[in-house]
Amino acid sequence: MTTIDIAKKPISRYPVPSLDDVPEDLRARMLEVQEKAGFVPNVFLTLAHRPDECRAFFAYHDALMLRDSGLTKGEKEMIVVATSGANDCLYCIVAHGAILRVYEKQPLIADQIAVNYRKADISARQKAMLAFAMKVATVSSTIEDADFEALRKHGFSDEDIWDIGAIAAFFALSNRMANMIGMRPNDEFYLMGRVLRKKEAAS
Amino acid sequence: MTTIDIAKKPISRYPVPSLDDVPEDLRARMLEVQEKAGFVPNVFLTLAHRPDECRAFFAYHDALMLRDSGLTKGEKEMIVVATSGANDCLYCIVAHGAILRVYEKQPLIADQIAVNYRKADISARQKAMLAFAMKVATVSSTIEDADFEALRKHGFSDEDIWDIGAIAAFFALSNRMANMIGMRPNDEFYLMGRVLRKKEAAS
Amino acid sequence: MTTIDIAKKPISRYPVPSLDDVPEDLRARMLEVQEKAGFVPNVFLTLAHRPDECRAFFAYHDALMLRDSGLTKGEKEMIVVATSGANDCLYCIVAHGAILRVYEKQPLIADQIAVNYRKADISARQKAMLAFAMKVATVSSTIEDADFEALRKHGFSDEDIWDIGAIAAFFALSNRMANMIGMRPNDEFYLMGRVLRKKEAAS
Amino acid sequence: MTTIDIAKKPISRYPVPSLDDVPEDLRARMLEVQEKAGFVPNVFLTLAHRPDECRAFFAYHDALMLRDSGLTKGEKEMIVVATSGANDCLYCIVAHGAILRVYEKQPLIADQIAVNYRKADISARQKAMLAFAMKVATVSSTIEDADFEALRKHGFSDEDIWDIGAIAAFFALSNRMANMIGMRPNDEFYLMGRVLRKKEAAS
Amino acid sequence: MTTIDIAKKPISRYPVPSLDDVPEDLRARMLEVQEKAGFVPNVFLTLAHRPDECRAFFAYHDALMLRDSGLTKGEKEMIVVATSGANDCLYCIVAHGAILRVYEKQPLIADQIAVNYRKADISARQKAMLAFAMKVATVSSTIEDADFEALRKHGFSDEDIWDIGAIAAFFALSNRMANMIGMRPNDEFYLMGRVLRKKEAAS
Amino acid sequence: MTTIDIAKKPISRYPVPSLDDVPEDLRARMLEVQEKAGFVPNVFLTLAHRPDECRAFFAYHDALMLRDSGLTKGEKEMIVVATSGANDCLYCIVAHGAILRVYEKQPLIADQIAVNYRKADISARQKAMLAFAMKVATVSSTIEDADFEALRKHGFSDEDIWDIGAIAAFFALSNRMANMIGMRPNDEFYLMGRVLRKKEAAS
Repeated sequence: MTTIDIAKKPISRYPVPSLDDVPEDLRARMLEVQEKAGFVPNVFLTLAHRPDECRAFFAYHDALMLRDSGLTKGEKEMIVVATSGANDCLYCIVAHGAILRVYEKQPLIADQIAVNYRKADISARQKAMLAFAMKVATVSSTIEDADFEALRKHGFSDEDIWDIGAIAAFFALSNRMANMIGMRPNDEFYLMGRVLRKKEAAS
Repeated sequence: MTTIDIAKKPISRYPVPSLDDVPEDLRARMLEVQEKAGFVPNVFLTLAHRPDECRAFFAYHDALMLRDSGLTKGEKEMIVVATSGANDCLYCIVAHGAILRVYEKQPLIADQIAVNYRKADISARQKAMLAFAMKVATVSSTIEDADFEALRKHGFSDEDIWDIGAIAAFFALSNRMANMIGMRPNDEFYLMGRVLRKKEAAS
Repeated sequence: MTTIDIAKKPISRYPVPSLDDVPEDLRARMLEVQEKAGFVPNVFLTLAHRPDECRAFFAYHDALMLRDSGLTKGEKEMIVVATSGANDCLYCIVAHGAILRVYEKQPLIADQIAVNYRKADISARQKAMLAFAMKVATVSSTIEDADFEALRKHGFSDEDIWDIGAIAAFFALSNRMANMIGMRPNDEFYLMGRVLRKKEAAS
Repeated sequence: MTTIDIAKKPISRYPVPSLDDVPEDLRARMLEVQEKAGFVPNVFLTLAHRPDECRAFFAYHDALMLRDSGLTKGEKEMIVVATSGANDCLYCIVAHGAILRVYEKQPLIADQIAVNYRKADISARQKAMLAFAMKVATVSSTIEDADFEALRKHGFSDEDIWDIGAIAAFFALSNRMANMIGMRPNDEFYLMGRVLRKKEAAS
Repeated sequence: MTTIDIAKKPISRYPVPSLDDVPEDLRARMLEVQEKAGFVPNVFLTLAHRPDECRAFFAYHDALMLRDSGLTKGEKEMIVVATSGANDCLYCIVAHGAILRVYEKQPLIADQIAVNYRKADISARQKAMLAFAMKVATVSSTIEDADFEALRKHGFSDEDIWDIGAIAAFFALSNRMANMIGMRPNDEFYLMGRVLRKKEAAS
Repeated sequence: MTTIDIAKKPISRYPVPSLDDVPEDLRARMLEVQEKAGFVPNVFLTLAHRPDECRAFFAYHDALMLRDSGLTKGEKEMIVVATSGANDCLYCIVAHGAILRVYEKQPLIADQIAVNYRKADISARQKAMLAFAMKVATVSSTIEDADFEALRKHGFSDEDIWDIGAIAAFFALSNRMANMIGMRPNDEFYLMGRVLRKKEAAS
């Protein structure tokens, strides 16, 4: 009855449940995403191997990523892509790179940020945001008040800074889970957002 | 009305709600912990600044740490302490070091594991467990099938290995949050479990 | 008279000559590439600021990349993409990622290898090849006879190993030049090879 | 007929051609160097195993090192020695250390710069030059406009900065080739330039 | 005849002499410490395996640690604890952490400094002192005059700076010896100074 | 009355006593070295700024370096030179490099070992010795029983291993002191042992 076509390449080192075997609440969410994106991202299916952890994972994700913020949705994805680049996490770079391209309607930006945010086509403010995120991702024990001060100069509020740091922290978890279980990105993500629809390109 | 005595030293770079201002469900949990431990650990109060994230954080924590597992509760805390040592996270080393001492009824073990698990008074199996956890914590992109094989030789099931890796991953998040907001450990943790009660010492 | 459309975003920190100002031999080569690819890759235009170095650069490039070898053309590009990933070189990842997709008729492989060759859809032999290339790229002073032995077991001849190491070494130069002058990849590269033509997909 | 005395210790992991077997143009160059230096540096003989790459290597080398520049010949060699020190490349430290001593008529400077340029008997301007070169050699993706600005303050033109960066980049290649093939420095280099001739010492 | 109770867990990879077998001068010193502390710290017993080195070790230690200085005895121990943390040396963190707690009459400070001196309950001046000590401990070749200048601004004399650097340097030796021979901290150290005596708490 | 000719370049960031101002016992030792070597090595003069520490330093040095051992005097100096290379310590590389050349009657070996012991003209046993010394110098907390086992296979006794590790540890101190005070090597060291006397060359 499931419409999900699990690729021949394994998408996890662990058993992956079929949509039918997934608890009702998680299945509802997956079907909703499938409706919208046309497929179920592998992060749902692979983490659903442990429903309780899976629920908490997406509750945390939504609390951070869907929250009203001084950051745009695109900026939040920039943080995900940059820090996932630092952690060499294939799943998150590919999947969130796609989302970033879609949100920003900018086909080049994800590859740029995944490799080196210093050279991306983004603002100085956004580069400062990513510098802080990278510090949280890689040497968080050295964060000092001066790091907060630097962001405030760019107009970020303290709540914005929490968002930046907390997204970097959450994807520190996400990257490690993906790397540990060998989570494979859906093939669909690689091309998504790379070709602008006419309406977008005109804008 | 709150009985919480917030130390003069700030416990977070962010505002800390009083127990009265915390949503009902979170307050209930905090009071429960207070009942048991005699105080509310600062991780609850400081993260409650953002209730939705706080709820997800503890849901995730409980899903991992309270789950039935091939690992003992003490072994799970060993993973927390070792990886928090790698991330130089004061809060998690001090707070989970205390819990580890209590669970293991062993006053030296937490300091040993926080500094260098190779020299701790633990089994070869536990050292293998921590070697894998440290790899997830610090260079997760290099995890390979051989790392799983090494743990299976020590009798760990694949579900046990998920536990090890997922705890390391969750505290990668936790350590970064604590370092980012400047979370201060409660003074009470430092001494906890260092002096065995007579009954324990006799056993 | 030049047909080159230099993007508004600077493609180098240094002056970029117009095709008319480039010495005859270099212009001939650029026109040849333009004929084939539809555009002149920025590496030609930006390095042409110094014609003598530019000539030597492409002579070296061709000596390595066009040489008959036990490695396929696609495998040579894998080495470029993997080591450029280690050096965080945007130009080389994007441009050679495109070439790799075209050669291998495989739209996913470049992103995989740029992030983490261990998880790419390639053979064990190719992973061994990339492990050696990464060692040359990052810690070449530790290369020992045992590293050669490991490759010979996968059927690589000593001349193949020279190819692997020399390509990694040449792009150590290339990556540093691109990073130093701020070489910007042509927009065209990002999409190239991501959509298979019908004929290719059928094969 | 060759006068080259190949040491009993192998000078490369690869076959080394005799002077007779080297293509005419490369042999001419080697004989010229031999005439001047009294011996053929092993870099010529070992790289001549692959004549096309060898030609490109020396064309690149000459384009950079013989070019008119705001840097003196000695300063160019300082860059080679400092960055080869960072890459632990025995051949380049020993051979170019010798050349540096000869150019600068200064017997101590090469050992100083190979170990720690901060403590060498050179000017503040030369230390700034080497700081940039080391950044290109080791973390080139972090080069920013501010790095250029810092050098301009010391009077370096943008063309001088290209020279500095390009020499560091070229020897990133050279160091890796030497480390990969196990290139052995000629014994003669070790002592060269360490004892000033009377005329030099008097000046 | 010896009163020393050597734990069942080995305190060194090397043979440990009994107090009776230790040369007279070293025994006298050990008995003196035992008189004062209630036990003989394992550093004495384990290093006494080589009496000449042991004598020099303690002569050096005393010359630095007992010397009149602009640093307090507690500040000197802060340097030991912070740099031993950087070297992951269990013995020195535990033993000198105890001494630090006793000197400072502050039960939390040692754990704080061992993990992350930036978050310890110490003054800005003391943090600057530890930043310099950490630089000597981990990247001493990059020490420059500016590092001295930074400390002078906090009121440290050049002799104070020697003390800071020399203590960091001496424990670079001590940490490596302890790690190499597997020196085990006495159990007594773990709890020492964690509970203030009434008189102290009142002050 | 002193015959010491202090170079115009400062040999320390700290005041350097004249021979007349040095305590009798240290002066006697310096004169003895001067008698033998023809000059007083700067390590004596610069450390004599603090006579007590200086005495302990040389007592420790002699206890290790003059001790009967399964290592030759030359092998002990190899350890000094290799680990000082890892610490980028100019003084120790230059001064002990000279001593190593003299002891081994081998003019090339010191430069080789300072840069990359893997490529030095030494035995496999000596390379294993240096691999252990480098581990003590750089990541001592990871030393395990297996590291001892590896050396025993090369015929090293446990006392030999102590020598190896202790020399690496002592020069961890020495390198940091030299780097901190800016100790300058005497010019004489650079050339010493590079030209074999006829008698030596004949042997």
